[in-house]
Amino acid sequence: MKFGARNQIVATVGAVKTGDVMSQVELQVDGPSTMASVLTTDSLQDLGIKPGDKVRVVVKAIHVLIVRD
Amino acid sequence: MKFGARNQIVATVGAVKTGDVMSQVELQVDGPSTMASVLTTDSLQDLGIKPGDKVRVVVKAIHVLIVRD
Amino acid sequence: MKFGARNQIVATVGAVKTGDVMSQVELQVDGPSTMASVLTTDSLQDLGIKPGDKVRVVVKAIHVLIVRD
Amino acid sequence: MKFGARNQIVATVGAVKTGDVMSQVELQVDGPSTMASVLTTDSLQDLGIKPGDKVRVVVKAIHVLIVRD
Amino acid sequence: MKFGARNQIVATVGAVKTGDVMSQVELQVDGPSTMASVLTTDSLQDLGIKPGDKVRVVVKAIHVLIVRD
Amino acid sequence: MKFGARNQIVATVGAVKTGDVMSQVELQVDGPSTMASVLTTDSLQDLGIKPGDKVRVVVKAIHVLIVRD
Repeated sequence: MKFGARNQIVATVGAVKTGDVMSQVELQVDGPSTMASVLTTDSLQDLGIKPGDKVRVVVKAIHVLIVRD
Repeated sequence: MKFGARNQIVATVGAVKTGDVMSQVELQVDGPSTMASVLTTDSLQDLGIKPGDKVRVVVKAIHVLIVRD
Repeated sequence: MKFGARNQIVATVGAVKTGDVMSQVELQVDGPSTMASVLTTDSLQDLGIKPGDKVRVVVKAIHVLIVRD
Repeated sequence: MKFGARNQIVATVGAVKTGDVMSQVELQVDGPSTMASVLTTDSLQDLGIKPGDKVRVVVKAIHVLIVRD
Repeated sequence: MKFGARNQIVATVGAVKTGDVMSQVELQVDGPSTMASVLTTDSLQDLGIKPGDKVRVVVKAIHVLIVRD
Repeated sequence: MKFGARNQIVATVGAVKTGDVMSQVELQVDGPSTMASVLTTDSLQDLGIKPGDKVRVVVKAIHVLIVRD
């Protein structure tokens, strides 16, 4: 399977915070950073993920903001 | 300085591809992944970045898609 | 494979317009509408799609704007 | 009225799930797919939509991810 | 006509830069700021806008990043 | 500090609505418009903003939709 996106990162699911409409998933990636995703609670349930699961993280390059100090 | 976004990653600028309206910047991050950003060529010139520069990469969590195999 | 997104549509690739940094892909879906995706030309080449190919179209619900007449 | 976006689909409002800050609207479109939008609960109330209403769905092409099996 | 988005600003079209796939439109708004939109060149032609035209600018709140110094 | 985004607006924080996962911040800008941002409640707390604070609002140009009457 291939994705039309420049950013594809392997991650491990961390804490999951389930809200009324939206939910938040912490994602552990290699290196010093952690990541997070917000998705609908419906999609979270369809995914059926739980802490420790391996997932793929996909981000289109146009959503990546560069900041220079 | 603080950002209202869950994903904040330190990166090193890699190859830069300058287009007529949009440009693409490769970003080296810790770990096995590389990332990329697409921004306007105007913003690229305002940033004044070149390969080797340290930058910060900011992505709002709602732009992060989780895929499960 | 499962996606953390509410909108998942089967489509057939139509015309492809390849630009310097970004490319545009027309997508034929069931019903009277056509859709389109813009992605980096690099991602287009990685996908290796051509007119007539079947693909899946994924859109997070937060990117869908409702307009009422 | 014209929109600067490639994806413009006529839809019928389905179930509405109203949350504390964000709300989710199911959208019935022609063909086998359903769609969904997430918007602020404030915007939902401003729209004043209810199940059965006809709406227009607008998505910029850069938010459309192509996935190839 | 109503939009499911929190940010709706009246603007005047400024300079237009037409690219191979994407185009950029400068937007003059009240106050000291200027804004800009990037859209497909196809959508730009469908809109048929030129400098001096009055348009409406719509941004969903989830695309707005807050930065604190 | 520089941002790879065309839209950078100075704003004053208005009302804040804190939800279970997502929160909404009203933003007063010069001119007749108000703006709003939705971010995770975690990011809101990290920002530590309250009504009256001065912030910077950053929006990438690809998230700006032009509508013509």
